[in-house]
Amino acid sequence: MKFYDCLMAPSPRRVRMFMAEKGIQIESVLIDLGVGEHLKSPFIELNPKASVPVLLLDNGTMLNESMAISVYLDSVFPDKNLTGIDPIERAVIAIAQHDMDFNGFQAIAECLRNSARGFIGRALVGPIGYNQIPDLAERGRSRIKLFFKDLNERLAKSEYVAGDRFTVADITAYVSLEFARIVKEKPSEDAQHLQRWRNAVALRNCSKV
Amino acid sequence: MKFYDCLMAPSPRRVRMFMAEKGIQIESVLIDLGVGEHLKSPFIELNPKASVPVLLLDNGTMLNESMAISVYLDSVFPDKNLTGIDPIERAVIAIAQHDMDFNGFQAIAECLRNSARGFIGRALVGPIGYNQIPDLAERGRSRIKLFFKDLNERLAKSEYVAGDRFTVADITAYVSLEFARIVKEKPSEDAQHLQRWRNAVALRNCSKV
Repeated sequence: MKFYDCLMAPSPRRVRMFMAEKGIQIESVLIDLGVGEHLKSPFIELNPKASVPVLLLDNGTMLNESMAISVYLDSVFPDKNLTGIDPIERAVIAIAQHDMDFNGFQAIAECLRNSARGFIGRALVGPIGYNQIPDLAERGRSRIKLFFKDLNERLAKSEYVAGDRFTVADITAYVSLEFARIVKEKPSEDAQHLQRWRNAVALRNCSKV
Repeated sequence: MKFYDCLMAPSPRRVRMFMAEKGIQIESVLIDLGVGEHLKSPFIELNPKASVPVLLLDNGTMLNESMAISVYLDSVFPDKNLTGIDPIERAVIAIAQHDMDFNGFQAIAECLRNSARGFIGRALVGPIGYNQIPDLAERGRSRIKLFFKDLNERLAKSEYVAGDRFTVADITAYVSLEFARIVKEKPSEDAQHLQRWRNAVALRNCSKV
């Protein structure tokens, strides 16, 4: 297997944290998004979506979506499960992860890509050049604030995002919080449940990658 | 189990088609989105996200995301699998489904919700009232056209969306095509691979629900 990674981008970090938590080591190839390596040959032929992360399997199958890669890795390396061990837990964790992605990660990306100078003409991931929409950046910013509030309320009810243990949903939420710094948004110090959880995740070795 | 459904909305239709293809029958409860039943008690307490479909399990667990519901149903009713039978196939189908959802279903929703009079102040699913963004409706429309083009190219390479058999990715793509009618977008008659596949899916009993 080969893992196509980029140290400056938040999406591949989700899979890097996932592998670090499980203790999986896979040969990695760094793609330099800064010089547009993802938009050029040979990477664009491997992944026409022009996104990282990518996991290339030994049989040639190319996987280019974080959650699908995570579920795959949990199936083939079952120790320290992070995506659920029975059908109900798998569904609950998948939905929590989806919520963290849609309400957190995607809201931050929406805000950043529709406002930062570096993303002019590249407001959506992929090879198509979409123009920035300033109103969408503002909507993204409102959604980030709501994400922090909802996350604090969620963590008032359970120790971790998807229940009483650390899972892939915590990884997506934690990477989203770190990613939000780029648009200068951070949760209030008064969000005590969120801060308790954030401090706990920051102590795990996987958060260092 | 109870399935919370709405016959006029495209999202629950994805799960309805999934259950019809597998021959699963579950007691259903109709939620009238037209009168805002999803935003009121008792539904809003069951699902604070205010979305359908919802699958309520016998142990009280509430599942409110189409793909997670589909994967759960495939686990507990394994006959006529639609989400993959081994780790690689599960990942490939999950990614194809994700692409159909993000590039098709979500693009159509983006176009509709940011332009139709009925969605003024409700540009995103859920209880929060977001204003419409006209530029986002236009971007959605461009993305729909690209979705049709990409889907035709994908179906030139394989019989079905995720490979050589009918899966949940075909259901998401088919429901998206039907959903696109509401914003008056349809694939060209010249998109021969797409039309061949669409005619084949339209012959399946599950497409009637």
